[in-house]
Amino acid sequence: MSIILAFSGGLDTSFCVPYLKETYDTPVHTVTVDTGGLRPGDAEAIVQRAEDLGAASHSLVDGKAALYEDHLSYLIQGNVKRGGVYPLCVGPERVVQARVMVQAAAELGATAIAHGSTGAGNDQVRFDVATQILSRAMLGKELDVLAPVRSLGLTREASTAYLEERGFDVPSSTTDYSINRGLWGTTVGGAETLTTHGPLPDSAYPDTTAPKDAPDEPLTLKISFEKGLPVAVNGEAMDGVSLVEHLNEVGGQHGVGRDIHVGDTILGIKGRVGFEAPAAEILITAHRELEKLVLSKWQQVKKDELAQFYGMLLHEAQYFDPVMRDIEAHLTSSQETVDGTVTLELYKGVARVLGADSSNSLFNASLATYGEENALWDGRDAEGFTRLAGVQSLLAAEVHSSST
Amino acid sequence: MSIILAFSGGLDTSFCVPYLKETYDTPVHTVTVDTGGLRPGDAEAIVQRAEDLGAASHSLVDGKAALYEDHLSYLIQGNVKRGGVYPLCVGPERVVQARVMVQAAAELGATAIAHGSTGAGNDQVRFDVATQILSRAMLGKELDVLAPVRSLGLTREASTAYLEERGFDVPSSTTDYSINRGLWGTTVGGAETLTTHGPLPDSAYPDTTAPKDAPDEPLTLKISFEKGLPVAVNGEAMDGVSLVEHLNEVGGQHGVGRDIHVGDTILGIKGRVGFEAPAAEILITAHRELEKLVLSKWQQVKKDELAQFYGMLLHEAQYFDPVMRDIEAHLTSSQETVDGTVTLELYKGVARVLGADSSNSLFNASLATYGEENALWDGRDAEGFTRLAGVQSLLAAEVHSSST
Amino acid sequence: MSIILAFSGGLDTSFCVPYLKETYDTPVHTVTVDTGGLRPGDAEAIVQRAEDLGAASHSLVDGKAALYEDHLSYLIQGNVKRGGVYPLCVGPERVVQARVMVQAAAELGATAIAHGSTGAGNDQVRFDVATQILSRAMLGKELDVLAPVRSLGLTREASTAYLEERGFDVPSSTTDYSINRGLWGTTVGGAETLTTHGPLPDSAYPDTTAPKDAPDEPLTLKISFEKGLPVAVNGEAMDGVSLVEHLNEVGGQHGVGRDIHVGDTILGIKGRVGFEAPAAEILITAHRELEKLVLSKWQQVKKDELAQFYGMLLHEAQYFDPVMRDIEAHLTSSQETVDGTVTLELYKGVARVLGADSSNSLFNASLATYGEENALWDGRDAEGFTRLAGVQSLLAAEVHSSST
Amino acid sequence: MSIILAFSGGLDTSFCVPYLKETYDTPVHTVTVDTGGLRPGDAEAIVQRAEDLGAASHSLVDGKAALYEDHLSYLIQGNVKRGGVYPLCVGPERVVQARVMVQAAAELGATAIAHGSTGAGNDQVRFDVATQILSRAMLGKELDVLAPVRSLGLTREASTAYLEERGFDVPSSTTDYSINRGLWGTTVGGAETLTTHGPLPDSAYPDTTAPKDAPDEPLTLKISFEKGLPVAVNGEAMDGVSLVEHLNEVGGQHGVGRDIHVGDTILGIKGRVGFEAPAAEILITAHRELEKLVLSKWQQVKKDELAQFYGMLLHEAQYFDPVMRDIEAHLTSSQETVDGTVTLELYKGVARVLGADSSNSLFNASLATYGEENALWDGRDAEGFTRLAGVQSLLAAEVHSSST
Repeated sequence: MSIILAFSGGLDTSFCVPYLKETYDTPVHTVTVDTGGLRPGDAEAIVQRAEDLGAASHSLVDGKAALYEDHLSYLIQGNVKRGGVYPLCVGPERVVQARVMVQAAAELGATAIAHGSTGAGNDQVRFDVATQILSRAMLGKELDVLAPVRSLGLTREASTAYLEERGFDVPSSTTDYSINRGLWGTTVGGAETLTTHGPLPDSAYPDTTAPKDAPDEPLTLKISFEKGLPVAVNGEAMDGVSLVEHLNEVGGQHGVGRDIHVGDTILGIKGRVGFEAPAAEILITAHRELEKLVLSKWQQVKKDELAQFYGMLLHEAQYFDPVMRDIEAHLTSSQETVDGTVTLELYKGVARVLGADSSNSLFNASLATYGEENALWDGRDAEGFTRLAGVQSLLAAEVHSSST
Repeated sequence: MSIILAFSGGLDTSFCVPYLKETYDTPVHTVTVDTGGLRPGDAEAIVQRAEDLGAASHSLVDGKAALYEDHLSYLIQGNVKRGGVYPLCVGPERVVQARVMVQAAAELGATAIAHGSTGAGNDQVRFDVATQILSRAMLGKELDVLAPVRSLGLTREASTAYLEERGFDVPSSTTDYSINRGLWGTTVGGAETLTTHGPLPDSAYPDTTAPKDAPDEPLTLKISFEKGLPVAVNGEAMDGVSLVEHLNEVGGQHGVGRDIHVGDTILGIKGRVGFEAPAAEILITAHRELEKLVLSKWQQVKKDELAQFYGMLLHEAQYFDPVMRDIEAHLTSSQETVDGTVTLELYKGVARVLGADSSNSLFNASLATYGEENALWDGRDAEGFTRLAGVQSLLAAEVHSSST
Repeated sequence: MSIILAFSGGLDTSFCVPYLKETYDTPVHTVTVDTGGLRPGDAEAIVQRAEDLGAASHSLVDGKAALYEDHLSYLIQGNVKRGGVYPLCVGPERVVQARVMVQAAAELGATAIAHGSTGAGNDQVRFDVATQILSRAMLGKELDVLAPVRSLGLTREASTAYLEERGFDVPSSTTDYSINRGLWGTTVGGAETLTTHGPLPDSAYPDTTAPKDAPDEPLTLKISFEKGLPVAVNGEAMDGVSLVEHLNEVGGQHGVGRDIHVGDTILGIKGRVGFEAPAAEILITAHRELEKLVLSKWQQVKKDELAQFYGMLLHEAQYFDPVMRDIEAHLTSSQETVDGTVTLELYKGVARVLGADSSNSLFNASLATYGEENALWDGRDAEGFTRLAGVQSLLAAEVHSSST
Repeated sequence: MSIILAFSGGLDTSFCVPYLKETYDTPVHTVTVDTGGLRPGDAEAIVQRAEDLGAASHSLVDGKAALYEDHLSYLIQGNVKRGGVYPLCVGPERVVQARVMVQAAAELGATAIAHGSTGAGNDQVRFDVATQILSRAMLGKELDVLAPVRSLGLTREASTAYLEERGFDVPSSTTDYSINRGLWGTTVGGAETLTTHGPLPDSAYPDTTAPKDAPDEPLTLKISFEKGLPVAVNGEAMDGVSLVEHLNEVGGQHGVGRDIHVGDTILGIKGRVGFEAPAAEILITAHRELEKLVLSKWQQVKKDELAQFYGMLLHEAQYFDPVMRDIEAHLTSSQETVDGTVTLELYKGVARVLGADSSNSLFNASLATYGEENALWDGRDAEGFTRLAGVQSLLAAEVHSSST
């Protein structure tokens, strides 16, 4: 028997290593999944830290491609932003991480998986649910999930004391904020986000330039899509992960994708979070514009409704509900003709659409010319159409006025 | 018998005055409804022009309060933007205008209403449908609707020639663009919007400052709401129309609310239009933020779905479908607690939320503290919740994995 | 300190009386809410039973009018049936009951409310949630909720033994089925409903005639509605509760409203339940027919979507989410013209619509005649309409065929 | 140049043969598509009639398999009934017919397609739209559509007179009703359906037994499904068309599937129609029951919403909107596990579910037992779940009560 611990090197998961070892008297293997959050040097520091804390083994797994393939591709195709602003930076990471944990448990014969989540937030639910389902699906049995910080109702002070008592280093926090860095964006919580009164200071955002400090010259970008997924920037082909990393870099220089969001947690309370997500902002803006050219009205309406719902369920730890596969099939069908190139301008915090082109554009179709009489109908047709367009309301108005 | 002509003073409606007089051998009364589009001097010029063209009478009616009360208030409460960007600047104006026309017809005993729309666009449908319904509801009989430009399939060249032949001035166009100015925003069409390739030049936008030319210093604004409607800016109470006009002014100085949209017309073809709508952008951004504090998750989800639909039907000339009244009742109910103040920053084309406060905030409720264990539940409760949260997906995963 | 116990007289709540008294050493007041489930003699038997078990006091409260006003009226107006068949017989009863319990707690100064639900089903969630919310809203503080059967994981054998040990009568079950009788219908669970293989035997349904044993002569009924609510049967005016009771009686004689449903519980597992609900079946069938005459297409579509969602949330213990009030406002608006009379025939288990009439009918509107050319449009209008009706699909087909 | 006429042998299309020949001075080829409506002898009679009227050629095409594959399969998987009762008997037939017409036009080099629809109903729109789109897609150019009865605003008297003048037989009507017979059901219009007051007489329904005359002994049926489509009845495998025909036969003997519906036409007016559709009623009832066992709650909710919308668009001549392909992909995904057998009882006009079984049942999953504590959670978990389930409403109630 042994335990797999999802390990970030922060205070909570650092506490878990000695605590789990002592409490369960069993080896603790730490696993870190890189979903885009590691900066140069982070990996080495995490390994060292795991060793120092007495982990039986440590492994680092690259989860970026899985994150992109399984999740970000649908979030792009669905134009998913919660509350009109927040891309789902964090939710899908937990699914990717849980899958890696269960794989590690299978390889190492572990019987439990542990994480450092508290009992207050979304991540515990996402982690628990994904682990239960994936362990049954992949191993044919359910692994125990241990969440000692939640079970103990542990404060940061208590974790710190526990580590200090045993002579372990306590991770020093270089910021007042809790940062979750990832490929699809970085969230920032703490201080100002504990109320809704005011903004985070510019300095709280770790990687992007503040709009006011961004270059005075706009940057023009061309993003090319095939079947609704980005394949090139300014004509240069890139795989999905590289393309997102590239846009995070250049978008961040122009302050694009910074914002703050008040949202509903799985547990029913409201939460507020700052975030910086340049690539998500750029890609969704561009993708949505391209869809306006190539999709029918009803295609847009229905996929928007479904994608909002998809984002809600993903946020709420329901990624494994089979309805998510149905919606993915719907989205995939809708993207059949979403090919083309969108031109945007990045300037002082905004990605603005300049134009778009597609060989599948319904706008450019030879049959259609807006603003002029055209080949498809004449004025008499239009008159007939307008005559019929109001019939039901006309009947209703007749009834309503005669009944009053 | 006489005819009421919805008159803007532009080429198409100028043509209509002599054409209708000659064709129907009857007096033509011109009526202009100000839905926010008249600049100083415009009214006088339009009156003069109507006289010159031989109108039997001319009247100017202020439709701004009706536009705000009957339409903009719901568009604010519903956060309605088509395609994520376009506030419905034009659609509701046609309803207000049609109502004034029918009233004028009643007063003057006219038997027909005329407008200058072509057979290619949305406005003909909106005007026809509204006129048919309102004339039946208000007069108990249906007035004829005459749309000579549509019936004749008239080109601008032909209209020009017709007026010149009769010695009338042809309205000189000072721009290459077709501008529709209104309280809720101004649309700009022509040239670049006939394709989707590129942006409109900054000079095409008549009233707002380009983001790049906007002040380097951001402007902070506080918008206060009661029951989902804006009632004050920076603590100064204003009626709805004045408040929108004020925000158009200050927002426009900061380049806020300029964008370009590709959308679906009622007739099934795609259309592209530039617009500047500072107040709409500011108010919807602020209002949505306030809702995030005070509405439940499902309130937001359901009213968003309904409001998008409401906007679609309003756009598509279906304002009089009784379902619109049902949705208005729904929206009104949802706004019961939408009181509070939102702080925004206007900077280089963007209105960004800084914070929000409400005495009805669910975020600030004494019971809820995010990120910490709290009074409403403990870690064991959370564990039970996560246990149940995944049950159905767990069962589904069991079936799916055993069936493969 | 004392405890209010929601008391039905069955095994679980009988166990609770002595158990709570002993465990908490405090008086236990039993309260029974009649939501339509008491037959003659039941009330007296329940009082006697409560006394025998040592209840400090017992009260019986008539909740039928509240059930009708607060819940059934919206379920009728919304045509709510889960899975196309099941009226929400049970869910709203729990809300009515919880409200009475909290009122009793206020009157008696009790500090806790107890119920007999297990940890397996829907009712525990409904009862807990309603009690928490209502006690805070009505008393300004949250009452404890005690559910000893759930906490102890008690089996029926254990409850029986507990009562027998103390010399109390054990309620004798005259049936193998668990019956929940109520104004809006009676549910039947047990034996056959523990699998999905086959039907309940006719004998399992307590109050209705089996379709095969129903009269060979159909019964014709006329139900009159005002603003979407039934007000008379065969011209005889009745209040809501009496009308439902009357239709349960006559409908039950014809075997109407019996069925069996497999549905999703709040906890994520599937459940199966038989039910008999004659009045619900008759009223929803009649009401929906009347709506087809008087509502616009979009009114029907939108209210159906909302009402299905409303039913889902009500079923899932979310009656107090404010979105429910918004939907009620929507439904109320939609019923403005739902006046008229529907004729149905009851025969061998079915309520079939024969016809309907309304002074607000859009069908009978003088303007409309189906199947003939009519006053509202001519063939050329129709041709123009059909020309435009296909434009967007035509453009899409052009793109799709040229891209292949 | 020649004309393809969609020919049924009825009055309107009989008129069209000589009228089109005379008016356009060109050969008229008649084509009849059998979508399930031909009884023995009908085909021969139609051929003879076409010859008598002077058709240049006549062909009869079997469209039943296409109707099933392209349309009925999705209507079954989507459980599509309009207004809760009406299966879409007629709408999809027009698409199948239009495709055959365009194919015939291609083979015969015809430049126009004609149909006998009036300007008052749905079929003209379906036929026109389908023909325009299919001719562009299949031929690369748009064929003219001729609808002389609509263009001329022709009455039945005038058609009769026209034929009599030229010495042609006038089709004798053996009924006062207009019957549209098809594989998915038969519609009956006329007399009583011109108002909403009362039912059609039993004699108006051509092929089914009245419920009152149906056998006193119920019939038990077992329908087996694979991936949401019926594959066997009582264990006997059948192809889709044969299975539907078989169920129409046996269901009709028991009076199943007869009803009358008031609905919204494409043109905005209401219409009323009787129908008999035994197979549709049986299959949708059975299929929906099976889904209740194997789909997650959200799968059912989302596919129901989409399928209702799908049915609406199909009804309204929008089959070719690409959104329909997206919904078909969604439905197909949702049917992955819809395998199993449903047992029904046919009795006196009703198909009632007795039970259902599936190897993919979530009900039968080994993990789940309803009504008892079970392996997936315990009472304390349930308590935690109920604690969290009400949090947001609790916060909202706190705000609402403190604000009043």
